[in-house]
Amino acid sequence: MKEYCGIFGIYNNPNAAYYTYLGLYALQHRGQESAGIAVTDGNRIDYHRDFGLVFSVFNSERLNSLTGHVAIGHNRYSTSGASDSPDNVQPIVVSYKLGQMAIAHNGNLVNAWELREKLEDEGSIFRGTTDSEVIVHLIVKSKKRRFLERLMDALSKLKGAYSLLVMTNKKLIAIRDPWGFRPLCMGELDGSPVFASETCAFDLIGAKYIRDVEPGEVVLIENGEMKSYRIPAFESAKRSQCIFEFVYFARPDSKIFGRSVYEVRKAFGRKLAKEHPVDADVVIPVPDSGVVPSLGYSQESGIPFELGLIRNHYVGRTFIKPQQKMRDIGVKVKLNPVPELLKGKRVVVIDDSIVRGTTSRKIVRMIREAGAKEVHMRISSPPTKWPCYFGIDTPTKDQLIASTHSVDEICRYIEADSLGYLSIEGMIEAAGGSWEDYCTACFDGNYPVDIPETVVRQAKKE
Amino acid sequence: MKEYCGIFGIYNNPNAAYYTYLGLYALQHRGQESAGIAVTDGNRIDYHRDFGLVFSVFNSERLNSLTGHVAIGHNRYSTSGASDSPDNVQPIVVSYKLGQMAIAHNGNLVNAWELREKLEDEGSIFRGTTDSEVIVHLIVKSKKRRFLERLMDALSKLKGAYSLLVMTNKKLIAIRDPWGFRPLCMGELDGSPVFASETCAFDLIGAKYIRDVEPGEVVLIENGEMKSYRIPAFESAKRSQCIFEFVYFARPDSKIFGRSVYEVRKAFGRKLAKEHPVDADVVIPVPDSGVVPSLGYSQESGIPFELGLIRNHYVGRTFIKPQQKMRDIGVKVKLNPVPELLKGKRVVVIDDSIVRGTTSRKIVRMIREAGAKEVHMRISSPPTKWPCYFGIDTPTKDQLIASTHSVDEICRYIEADSLGYLSIEGMIEAAGGSWEDYCTACFDGNYPVDIPETVVRQAKKE
Amino acid sequence: MKEYCGIFGIYNNPNAAYYTYLGLYALQHRGQESAGIAVTDGNRIDYHRDFGLVFSVFNSERLNSLTGHVAIGHNRYSTSGASDSPDNVQPIVVSYKLGQMAIAHNGNLVNAWELREKLEDEGSIFRGTTDSEVIVHLIVKSKKRRFLERLMDALSKLKGAYSLLVMTNKKLIAIRDPWGFRPLCMGELDGSPVFASETCAFDLIGAKYIRDVEPGEVVLIENGEMKSYRIPAFESAKRSQCIFEFVYFARPDSKIFGRSVYEVRKAFGRKLAKEHPVDADVVIPVPDSGVVPSLGYSQESGIPFELGLIRNHYVGRTFIKPQQKMRDIGVKVKLNPVPELLKGKRVVVIDDSIVRGTTSRKIVRMIREAGAKEVHMRISSPPTKWPCYFGIDTPTKDQLIASTHSVDEICRYIEADSLGYLSIEGMIEAAGGSWEDYCTACFDGNYPVDIPETVVRQAKKE
Amino acid sequence: MKEYCGIFGIYNNPNAAYYTYLGLYALQHRGQESAGIAVTDGNRIDYHRDFGLVFSVFNSERLNSLTGHVAIGHNRYSTSGASDSPDNVQPIVVSYKLGQMAIAHNGNLVNAWELREKLEDEGSIFRGTTDSEVIVHLIVKSKKRRFLERLMDALSKLKGAYSLLVMTNKKLIAIRDPWGFRPLCMGELDGSPVFASETCAFDLIGAKYIRDVEPGEVVLIENGEMKSYRIPAFESAKRSQCIFEFVYFARPDSKIFGRSVYEVRKAFGRKLAKEHPVDADVVIPVPDSGVVPSLGYSQESGIPFELGLIRNHYVGRTFIKPQQKMRDIGVKVKLNPVPELLKGKRVVVIDDSIVRGTTSRKIVRMIREAGAKEVHMRISSPPTKWPCYFGIDTPTKDQLIASTHSVDEICRYIEADSLGYLSIEGMIEAAGGSWEDYCTACFDGNYPVDIPETVVRQAKKE
Repeated sequence: MKEYCGIFGIYNNPNAAYYTYLGLYALQHRGQESAGIAVTDGNRIDYHRDFGLVFSVFNSERLNSLTGHVAIGHNRYSTSGASDSPDNVQPIVVSYKLGQMAIAHNGNLVNAWELREKLEDEGSIFRGTTDSEVIVHLIVKSKKRRFLERLMDALSKLKGAYSLLVMTNKKLIAIRDPWGFRPLCMGELDGSPVFASETCAFDLIGAKYIRDVEPGEVVLIENGEMKSYRIPAFESAKRSQCIFEFVYFARPDSKIFGRSVYEVRKAFGRKLAKEHPVDADVVIPVPDSGVVPSLGYSQESGIPFELGLIRNHYVGRTFIKPQQKMRDIGVKVKLNPVPELLKGKRVVVIDDSIVRGTTSRKIVRMIREAGAKEVHMRISSPPTKWPCYFGIDTPTKDQLIASTHSVDEICRYIEADSLGYLSIEGMIEAAGGSWEDYCTACFDGNYPVDIPETVVRQAKKE
Repeated sequence: MKEYCGIFGIYNNPNAAYYTYLGLYALQHRGQESAGIAVTDGNRIDYHRDFGLVFSVFNSERLNSLTGHVAIGHNRYSTSGASDSPDNVQPIVVSYKLGQMAIAHNGNLVNAWELREKLEDEGSIFRGTTDSEVIVHLIVKSKKRRFLERLMDALSKLKGAYSLLVMTNKKLIAIRDPWGFRPLCMGELDGSPVFASETCAFDLIGAKYIRDVEPGEVVLIENGEMKSYRIPAFESAKRSQCIFEFVYFARPDSKIFGRSVYEVRKAFGRKLAKEHPVDADVVIPVPDSGVVPSLGYSQESGIPFELGLIRNHYVGRTFIKPQQKMRDIGVKVKLNPVPELLKGKRVVVIDDSIVRGTTSRKIVRMIREAGAKEVHMRISSPPTKWPCYFGIDTPTKDQLIASTHSVDEICRYIEADSLGYLSIEGMIEAAGGSWEDYCTACFDGNYPVDIPETVVRQAKKE
Repeated sequence: MKEYCGIFGIYNNPNAAYYTYLGLYALQHRGQESAGIAVTDGNRIDYHRDFGLVFSVFNSERLNSLTGHVAIGHNRYSTSGASDSPDNVQPIVVSYKLGQMAIAHNGNLVNAWELREKLEDEGSIFRGTTDSEVIVHLIVKSKKRRFLERLMDALSKLKGAYSLLVMTNKKLIAIRDPWGFRPLCMGELDGSPVFASETCAFDLIGAKYIRDVEPGEVVLIENGEMKSYRIPAFESAKRSQCIFEFVYFARPDSKIFGRSVYEVRKAFGRKLAKEHPVDADVVIPVPDSGVVPSLGYSQESGIPFELGLIRNHYVGRTFIKPQQKMRDIGVKVKLNPVPELLKGKRVVVIDDSIVRGTTSRKIVRMIREAGAKEVHMRISSPPTKWPCYFGIDTPTKDQLIASTHSVDEICRYIEADSLGYLSIEGMIEAAGGSWEDYCTACFDGNYPVDIPETVVRQAKKE
Repeated sequence: MKEYCGIFGIYNNPNAAYYTYLGLYALQHRGQESAGIAVTDGNRIDYHRDFGLVFSVFNSERLNSLTGHVAIGHNRYSTSGASDSPDNVQPIVVSYKLGQMAIAHNGNLVNAWELREKLEDEGSIFRGTTDSEVIVHLIVKSKKRRFLERLMDALSKLKGAYSLLVMTNKKLIAIRDPWGFRPLCMGELDGSPVFASETCAFDLIGAKYIRDVEPGEVVLIENGEMKSYRIPAFESAKRSQCIFEFVYFARPDSKIFGRSVYEVRKAFGRKLAKEHPVDADVVIPVPDSGVVPSLGYSQESGIPFELGLIRNHYVGRTFIKPQQKMRDIGVKVKLNPVPELLKGKRVVVIDDSIVRGTTSRKIVRMIREAGAKEVHMRISSPPTKWPCYFGIDTPTKDQLIASTHSVDEICRYIEADSLGYLSIEGMIEAAGGSWEDYCTACFDGNYPVDIPETVVRQAKKE
């Protein structure tokens, strides 16, 4: 049910499908389970989508067959272990009374189940299980006549996170939910409007970043003209941009929510060094997300930075687990220490967050076994205590170690010599913003949208 | 024809195939074109091999079907653009008079063509085009009676680079050529002897590193006993370990030729900082091979280190190139700058080597376009002037820019403000050795083995 | 759009999926494009379906994963050249308000477009383009509460041909349209009710034929009880069983519409011999459909029967056509004459029908080139003059040679010495029935259901 | 080890590969396991081959890529249950000292193991396990200088059955062993020489049959010239054409050994009627091989012929067997009776041979269950008592029911009312020849070539 994804769209470009392919390529880190592109030549929508990484889903032949001047694309995130249906692969493309429509969605609705039940009561048949299909049915079922009215009618019913690209034979529409949970950037390539979850997609194709699509904004392009509308009925929604995008998800070379991810992430490290200094010989990151905050920590503290843990970049999703009787391979499949850097040293190791604590414990042990004298764990975000219902794949409350344990207890559990988390205040300050800008629900439980009981229960069962 | 590969072997372990799988996994960086495992239960040799990465070639079912206590494995490197035959995928497994034999080979023979011609004259039929098959035919054709005699007979005819694992129904043999071009390490896991190109394979499976297989050594294990022999007829061969393994190929967390790759590589950076200092604001690496020398350069020079170029780790081999009329994507598919780090800065950028110069030029331009005031390129190895005939995939002499241009000319070509290469002396010193230890032919043309004219010509045609 | 298919269903049998597999196997001649099986264990419906023959769509693993006691299956016919969508492969399986439902449909509705348009107006989203999906949406959209009421509501809106198997988690329902266009037989296997398009499916699994599902009958099985209902609102529908099933489509070892196909088909040949006798030396069939009428013709006339044309049974759908400049391979890919049987002979050649006349001409020429002195063509059905809208894949009127040419003209066109068709009266008499029993619209244009103009136009465009 | 196959070759035709494809298509009945085509343009040999039927192994793209003017092709027969290696798929193509060579072989050598052992002693490495590879190694290992001399050298060592097509970059050679076990026909297409196992391949492509390649003849075509040679050292070999080709294997529309298969097969039926008359109501064949002799029996006896058993032509090799606990499907997967033809009748059922008797028993039972009053089995060949070592896939002696049981005992075993076999004399007379022409070893044990003990033992183990 988690819909953590990357989306890309382009209007009026002869190489629409190819640029979308590139865009998805750059956004691959936001979703590795499936990829898809829908394209229109003004008459009909064609598409290709499948499970797999962008470069395995598409080949030259497939891409060349997607002719048209407008395209949208989607990368989908894989929730661990879910054996998923092809009907959940996006973009969703449907034929209905007004013609064809394609949609690519990043985010998670909190009232999807409620809406779905109502639609099924009225005779709608759903193909898959994604939130996104609810949006499509709402548009198709709307009693309004014109497309924009139908769309607005549908959006006014949605609660939760959605950065959305919608395409008809003639239109491209970019939408960001009233809270602005997920990023959505607008750019321009040789006069063609482009949209992407992160600006790294613009960099690859050589497009210029213009501005973010605003929370609650509907940008509609048709006949070469761009117009901006507001989603009705949510005027008072509080801006709630996901600060976890900075902590972990976004690429460091991207700009989101108007800021450089690299700079924010490094500022997290600097702030962390101030809040939790330690007398040590070397700062090492848990790669890759710990690298940039480690640089910040190192520069602020003056402790030298080294790549003490080397990551195997060929790790695949289909790694075959060892049999019960063999010794645990653990995190070694991904990480291997460089003993020469660690032997006899007092080591600061920096990670972006701790979820269950088991991985952190393995890492601390691994560093110690490589000869470290002391191991000090520093985390570049506050303790994660609450599940996210807006698209980040966090486990339920009872599985989040910080939700049930104090920092001291966690420190003992992971067998570190000391443990320090960045404070919420420090994080927001480092992100250069105010409490008014960000959703920090996973740290403090202040959900900007009411979470229905059914959703909480559903999340527990998964 | 280039045979740059990773090999792994294990003797007398109930999970032989699975540990070999893990070993190849850890050695994936040495070869991504194909993978294979051969295993014996003492009666017959079974195997599976195919094109692709280790994790896509093997699944649980395949791996479980490879039952036996002795196994060898092989990862094969892909020479750019070669459309290759399945008959070249290793391990090579053959049936002949004495039974079955499997062989996994890392390296490149310089007299393979000559030997092959002679074998064909005598009626041998070759399946593929690899050097490795020559070794097999020499063993099968030998007039000697016992296997070890046949093997020695064959080895005494080989010139060039070969780290070799040979398996029969009863034996496992590890061999390193008399010059010791390629690494081959020996370890131990719960009493089982293991062999691998690099120690990172031992780390993953929890094996202990014992020592390197010596240049010219034949380690034979049979009936649980290990014996060591010397390859006859090459007593005077000069030790010629490939120093380029330190520069680029080996994983930083490995130990090869008795030294930590990370430490040697960082020492290259430190030495480079001493040989070619520059007044600058930031040191950035070309990832990934430039990262460790950059840390050395930064620490030696005091100039701060930043990840100014972010690498896309999802780049696949099947990336679809843009059409002619579109703007060049260039290195941006792999690398994206972080403008906030570079704007208005004097930048030192560090790469491991320059081959043709075109990529370096693109990188310099990319950094400048991101706002850098000055761009100083530093290379953590000497100018590459001569092709390698021992397994590294270098182009011919006329395509190596350093072979036909002075450092000043290269600097102008790549449009850098300054350019500095590590000296050969500096490199050897940083590698902690002497001229007696390493092959530096790619830098100075001193080939430790005579290269036949046919091989030189053949290389040019490819 | 043509939905010529084979269907099979079984209730309350531990090997439901496997017997359905066998049933589809026996019905393979009714559809070679795709195959599918849906099965329920009382809680949920699982299914597998794909393009291809039954034995290539299913393997042991797939079949074993389809656990449950009730199953339905479907073979789909391929209309020539149609590149079809996976969304048209049956059984159709949907989730809706009341749970899951699967449906397998043989036949063609004449008011499908009209119904579909109305459903889309009300917000229904269709996946594919088959008639069958209309039935599903009608059931889901019905305002009735109980499933049977919803089903009856839907059926009362359908015009045209449908033999239908519907499955829910608890029920199996077999339905035949009020006209009885397509066959649907009921049998019994070890106490389990079974349904199949033809009895040859019963023979393979060892089931006993009980009776036909009656035109307009709805047989519902639930909780082990079987009940029979009538489709409302069509009491006056004229029985209109497709006589072409006897001529060509059904297997000769089947019983349909209560009669042995072999006997009816042979009676066609006997009657043909009486209506169109000829002085000749040998009777040969166009295999395979001409074989049984040829035996009838031979026995009635006393002219010896021989297999003068040998059929290549390995002909695949993917036969690669020769290039323009090569000589025409024509029907020789399928048929090869035995010259020794034909040289100097007066030959009667019997086929089931003539569509465009081009194949018949090639066959006459082939026989003559093999040395025949005279070639007399006899057809075991009347001239095909009208397109079928109830499921048989006939071309439009202007492409049917008998629609625009007299028998004499056809005879000249196909270059035969004489040509004789079975009369409609003769055919019906041989089929042992009366005008009240059969649809003969393809011969005389008397369509038992009004054909909307849009359908006629649509058929022309295809 | 059984090498029952179809081969085809063509010289000097611009559509060489396509005609070979057609030829293999027509010869598909001789081998369904694998197919392959090798083609040369005068410079190099290219090929494609794989498991599967001809039409699935080749598609347009594959075929078009096989450019050249000379081609040979091969269909391979599947011995029941053998899980085979890709290395056994033909044509075999090798590179050796003189260049490339391709070979397609139909037949079985009796001294293959002996020759192979000797070659392995001398250092040859075999890829697969086919006899055919021995021939290749003998040619490559020959000390002679010119190709024809090498070939003759190799052929002079072979004992057993081989119809052979050999291709080099410049030559096409057709060879039939000195005994002439397997057929090999020569034809002509627009001036291009063509060769095929049976003439049905000529009919499809429109080629003219010229003559058979003679037993012991080597037809070599080079530079547009055709020359004929004799295999040395076997002048006294007795002509021993496989009479079983007429009984079962060849297509009825083919001519082999100079005679029409249809006519010979029908003469078997006529002779059978004379040797074993019976008072009966209907003659029915076991399709397909029983059809033509049944027509002969019917015409000779005056008893009417009917297709009392209908064959399912969609039977695939991958049919999923029912589970233990289900009732036996038996021969019903392939055959279904037409009860209306059999009820209350005295039935003569005709098959080509009886191997183990189990299938015959099932057929007799099936006919009786369909209502027959009497079932008289007639076999259109003599009792099969001896295994074939020349290419027909027969089981070992102890599994051949006629080898251990009298005709009366077999009759009781298969539960027939009477059983009659064609006599050897009758068969030879019907085949229009004399004892001098045919190999009848499977009926009388008179093997024309001595069978080594090892071969007999090997056959038993398989």
